[in-house]
Amino acid sequence: MFHTTPALTRQLSAMSSSIRFNPMFHRDSVPGNRDSSSSATSAQQAPEYAKVLRTETGLNKALQDMQYAVRGELVLRAHKLSHRLENGEKLPFSEVTYCNIGNPQSVGQNPVSFLRQSIAAVAYPSLLESEHFSSDIIKRAETFLERCKSVGAYSESKGVDFVRKRVAKAIEERDGYASDPDLIFLSNGASDAVKSILQITIRHSEDGVLIPIPQYPLYSATLTALSGRQVGYYLDEEHGWALSIDELKKSLNEARKQGTQVRAIVVINPGNPTGQVLSEENMKDIISFCEAENLVLMADEVYQNNVYVENKPFVSFKKVVCDMQSSVELASFHSISKGVIGECGLRGGYVELYNTEHEMNELLNKVCSISLCSNLIGQYAVDLMMTPPKEDEESFALYKKETDGIYNDLRIKAQKLCEGLNSLEGVTCNDSEGAMYLFPQIRIPRKAIEEAKNRGYTCADVLYCMELLEETGICVVPGSGFGQREGTYHFRTTFLPTREKIDHVVEGIRTFHDRFLRRYS
Amino acid sequence: MFHTTPALTRQLSAMSSSIRFNPMFHRDSVPGNRDSSSSATSAQQAPEYAKVLRTETGLNKALQDMQYAVRGELVLRAHKLSHRLENGEKLPFSEVTYCNIGNPQSVGQNPVSFLRQSIAAVAYPSLLESEHFSSDIIKRAETFLERCKSVGAYSESKGVDFVRKRVAKAIEERDGYASDPDLIFLSNGASDAVKSILQITIRHSEDGVLIPIPQYPLYSATLTALSGRQVGYYLDEEHGWALSIDELKKSLNEARKQGTQVRAIVVINPGNPTGQVLSEENMKDIISFCEAENLVLMADEVYQNNVYVENKPFVSFKKVVCDMQSSVELASFHSISKGVIGECGLRGGYVELYNTEHEMNELLNKVCSISLCSNLIGQYAVDLMMTPPKEDEESFALYKKETDGIYNDLRIKAQKLCEGLNSLEGVTCNDSEGAMYLFPQIRIPRKAIEEAKNRGYTCADVLYCMELLEETGICVVPGSGFGQREGTYHFRTTFLPTREKIDHVVEGIRTFHDRFLRRYS
Repeated sequence: MFHTTPALTRQLSAMSSSIRFNPMFHRDSVPGNRDSSSSATSAQQAPEYAKVLRTETGLNKALQDMQYAVRGELVLRAHKLSHRLENGEKLPFSEVTYCNIGNPQSVGQNPVSFLRQSIAAVAYPSLLESEHFSSDIIKRAETFLERCKSVGAYSESKGVDFVRKRVAKAIEERDGYASDPDLIFLSNGASDAVKSILQITIRHSEDGVLIPIPQYPLYSATLTALSGRQVGYYLDEEHGWALSIDELKKSLNEARKQGTQVRAIVVINPGNPTGQVLSEENMKDIISFCEAENLVLMADEVYQNNVYVENKPFVSFKKVVCDMQSSVELASFHSISKGVIGECGLRGGYVELYNTEHEMNELLNKVCSISLCSNLIGQYAVDLMMTPPKEDEESFALYKKETDGIYNDLRIKAQKLCEGLNSLEGVTCNDSEGAMYLFPQIRIPRKAIEEAKNRGYTCADVLYCMELLEETGICVVPGSGFGQREGTYHFRTTFLPTREKIDHVVEGIRTFHDRFLRRYS
Repeated sequence: MFHTTPALTRQLSAMSSSIRFNPMFHRDSVPGNRDSSSSATSAQQAPEYAKVLRTETGLNKALQDMQYAVRGELVLRAHKLSHRLENGEKLPFSEVTYCNIGNPQSVGQNPVSFLRQSIAAVAYPSLLESEHFSSDIIKRAETFLERCKSVGAYSESKGVDFVRKRVAKAIEERDGYASDPDLIFLSNGASDAVKSILQITIRHSEDGVLIPIPQYPLYSATLTALSGRQVGYYLDEEHGWALSIDELKKSLNEARKQGTQVRAIVVINPGNPTGQVLSEENMKDIISFCEAENLVLMADEVYQNNVYVENKPFVSFKKVVCDMQSSVELASFHSISKGVIGECGLRGGYVELYNTEHEMNELLNKVCSISLCSNLIGQYAVDLMMTPPKEDEESFALYKKETDGIYNDLRIKAQKLCEGLNSLEGVTCNDSEGAMYLFPQIRIPRKAIEEAKNRGYTCADVLYCMELLEETGICVVPGSGFGQREGTYHFRTTFLPTREKIDHVVEGIRTFHDRFLRRYS
């Protein structure tokens, strides 16, 4: 699965336009641009203004080619249906149930008090004098404000040093290995850090990055935007979405044969949309593969606090790289948007570099500096996530109660939804060992595949998801948005709505699914 | 001033490598990449791992070429000196005075209570029950939370609709013309919005954008990163940094002769680093120029609330475009980082599109969606900035008192520093009509120019600024970081430190300046 077309097209077009280039008549050869050599000196008699930023020739092609299903067509339709319901219209359902995106607080999850009290305290420090907050919250807010002066001040481009040091210490405690605060870069969510690392890695349109199929579409979209190449490797659905080294080798060799300079591999652990958790053995093999093939390892570990199985505890790639004394360049990502805190809207995250050259670290710092810094409240939230209250601190009891509640809820909902899906005819779904998603495979009748073609959908799973939405109000994302083996069909659903709503989702999908099978059988 | 070299080099290298391309021996021709055709199938016997992300061949060239003086070498040196002082070392000064960056709250400006109370209220809604906040703050917080559910939830990619509607309404009140909330895109500071618009505008390495000289280096850095071309136009220092249409035409024609497809113009009003405020007449001419030459107008208006002269009130480009019934495509930027609130660290901003095609608007929305959304607290702060308390609201009195205080202080400090600079031998400085900066021209003795060359500095103003820092602790940014006419030397200084410190800055620069002239005369 190589989406090289846009990149190649763009490169070829750049080549041909530079061949066409003629300093005397340079504007003539540009389609859609009228010759303005005369108007340049006579603004008053200019002909009519023609839009510059228009589809035909005027917009960056790579960006136009970008796809991002999590917020795509289906979700726009869901928003429209929501609005119609709000306006009192009668539909076959009373509300839209959003299962399309890992956005827990939008579907009823409460924020964790410890985090929000801490944030209110640094936002409006006069509150520190009041009786609202426990002593540990006040103390850390004061220390933070001493170091950053104000959440209204730009910090160092890579983030407040105080926060980076605490993050490093927390990583050390997690892994048992040293972490360098200077190699931690705080960002507006993990997405921004991912984009920066990819931007540095892709030098030209022959560079590629190994990404899983299915994958979180941030990776494919960013590579498309950079005119880089996506080198997909399939996860093994029959074996719980396992990552096979043979499959990696196959994809890599295939890509190299096509002239792709493969520079890095993205591993999402726990998986999105697949929910699998890698074994330590598997991680070692991946690192050995990176060593053998000279690849940067990009470890998307934003779901590290969302593991629901006991036999596969989360182990970071940083730890395994250190265990192996490997020199593989590692960029590992984490975020406040996931875990049990689910603070998506605050936009906090970080990337930790390891084994990278000084020049690389400096370049990333420069890239960060162009946007000045990530938002300070998100930075502080990263600190709060990485260093939660300790047992002897006043805020501990409530923190423990709230976070345990959210975690257990997630685990139970994952199981409930997975069982419900597996009970449907022609649907198989791997357990969610981690993350926030299930990615069931649905066998779609031939008639439905034809109907999807007739309607101009890119894939039959779009038909399935669209009809599910229209008939039940349940919004999930077609598997084709994440990538899947040719001829298979999936969708991604979160298990984030409340327990009662998950019951409703299970029932809604069951009723719809039976109807869908009958309709197209 | 065309920095086409990196872009051209990159393009040529892309061309030559695609000519070299051979599907059978593709890796051989890549310098520094060992042939791994064997290792691909035998990970266990792999030779040593060679770093992928290293300077010679491994890092995105355009990013390496990027320059960003506001956080460059001089500032790093200033941080080092700060650390040495903190560690008790004796230096010729007792503290570093940061005048390098428009970061008011880092140098003592207090946050505005209305903003911070409002933010604390939405961050920890339990506070709404307490006695801390006035009724209007509570009411707007409740309305906001009703619409976005939680500041911990992702919003629509372009921002919470409630905020966009209020921003549109505020723009309508400012300009007297309709504003479409769907064409307002909230962003993490204005910088991110600027980068997105440039990314969409630059299609390939022959595309260019007109940017002022001197300019805020976000523009040059982003164009370099995109392998686009900077087409500089000089502001007229002798006439208060006026923007001359003849100069625009000259630059444009020169660029077109060199094969550059000039697509847009950046106008910073009030100016950064120059502080000039455009007259409405001048703005009309600029819009006519865009019409005649088919250019997108990018209006950087982040200093619209920082105008210190009475005869030139701020007028938005949106208003003038509407007055003229022009069809010029307009992107205008605003930010919470500047004005009197100076909330840099919260990272809030927006771009309003006008006269743009539907496809352009959709594409920008897609670009936003890859990062999911900008931070919600920054979004709320945009609302608070655009719709401050009304006279009959409880929080108005304090808001008025605080913001008037900050504004008057800025005006007085600007004047004081400007007078001080103009009193120095060989220094001339235009008034700061707006923004947060002064950009004095300094005549540098020939011996100093030679000394700068000997030390390997890119420009003699770096020597001046470096010695100023080492001897007085005052940190300003060399004019060469913003661009200036060949043979002239400047620096940019903010006037943000407290009034007492501004006195100290004036005295410090005076003493240093005399010594500098003597040393190199």
